Amino acid sequence: MQNRGTIYMLPCPIADSDSVWDVLPDSNRQVINSLDYFIVENVRSARRFLSKAGVERAISELEFVELNEHTTSSADVERMLRPIIDGRSAGVISEAGVPGVADPGADIVALAHRHGIRVVPLVGPSSIILAMMASGQNGQSFSFVGYIPVKDAERSQRIKSLERRAQQEHQAQIFIEAPYRNVKLMEALLKTLSPQTRLTVAADITGADEYILTLSVEQWRRRGMPPIEKRPTIFILGI
Amino acid sequence: MQNRGTIYMLPCPIADSDSVWDVLPDSNRQVINSLDYFIVENVRSARRFLSKAGVERAISELEFVELNEHTTSSADVERMLRPIIDGRSAGVISEAGVPGVADPGADIVALAHRHGIRVVPLVGPSSIILAMMASGQNGQSFSFVGYIPVKDAERSQRIKSLERRAQQEHQAQIFIEAPYRNVKLMEALLKTLSPQTRLTVAADITGADEYILTLSVEQWRRRGMPPIEKRPTIFILGI
Repeated sequence: MQNRGTIYMLPCPIADSDSVWDVLPDSNRQVINSLDYFIVENVRSARRFLSKAGVERAISELEFVELNEHTTSSADVERMLRPIIDGRSAGVISEAGVPGVADPGADIVALAHRHGIRVVPLVGPSSIILAMMASGQNGQSFSFVGYIPVKDAERSQRIKSLERRAQQEHQAQIFIEAPYRNVKLMEALLKTLSPQTRLTVAADITGADEYILTLSVEQWRRRGMPPIEKRPTIFILGI
Repeated sequence: MQNRGTIYMLPCPIADSDSVWDVLPDSNRQVINSLDYFIVENVRSARRFLSKAGVERAISELEFVELNEHTTSSADVERMLRPIIDGRSAGVISEAGVPGVADPGADIVALAHRHGIRVVPLVGPSSIILAMMASGQNGQSFSFVGYIPVKDAERSQRIKSLERRAQQEHQAQIFIEAPYRNVKLMEALLKTLSPQTRLTVAADITGADEYILTLSVEQWRRRGMPPIEKRPTIFILGI
């Protein structure tokens, strides 16, 4: 086997207001500066991140390819891997937070393992883990299930099935929504869930207006809507 | 309401060989230096971490209380919260990695929310998330389920039910074992799982001998035992 490149999974900040080096270890800098090939969810935001991070090379000298929901064929992903098979290392960058989790970065990683390419994850902010840490929910058993259906009937069905699993398996259930639909989801949660179920709302994690609170559904009903409108939010339900 | 303290969830390194500031953002230093009260899983390892981190105050001036599997009564946890209700801030430190996830730190956090105390999670290494990032498994839906039963019959039953869930819900299933039983677990996995199931083995994450590889069970059977004996390892299965 010839010398292959390595894939580095490079986290970036979650909140726009965050200074890059307040949420990433300084040692990530050295890795970032060693790379000139990036597989990214969005070129514009990856460029902005690298520039804020103070990358040493001129951004114009760096090569970017996009891997996102518009990447349709596995041949495209194969093509992105080609330079790495040939010995060039690459960084994978998501729109926000850690790549490979709740984003399409996992596709290139899966293919990399099939080709015997080493994948190295770097430390950075994961809103899922940060929300779990600050929630008081059951960290011994938890699921991240992504987005909740949008249509009313399906949504309440899904919420009920998540609550059932939380009860039966004592497993915390983590989910998200497009920020502009957060209020609608919260309303559905308060209508659908049992009064004793514990619900964590974690908005703008690491940001200046970070808001993390766990209350029973009963308490949330009395307290009213938290400040989650159009703000990136993680929801966790548990018993 | 009087001025209450804040609880900071303070990650520490996963691997013994890691330099503290290679895996933690520099901004955590300021938070650590502002605290003199720590709720920790193990006093000895928390002291070692703070000393390696270069905490400014003398370690002997800091107050530590242990919260772990020996903390039996909720009155004990109430007592730990008392200084925080009275205005003193606290740091929560786990034996390794991020606190509140797969450790008893969640108990104090749950109680804190009931008392209206703010909980702030800081960025650091989570072996669960780092393993997911580098696995190529489905990051859109995944479960962490903790430890696998030790007895043969229960263990293979549990492995089968995890595989069933991975197949039916396309949900990656993450689990762990006491390091000295890793080889036994791996043997059971290779015996029990279907040949096509994908299995990730992630050992010594962030450490000098980091080993992360995803193969089908069929490929693992041909490859043989990975270097996981007595090394902290995350297992992930998926389709």
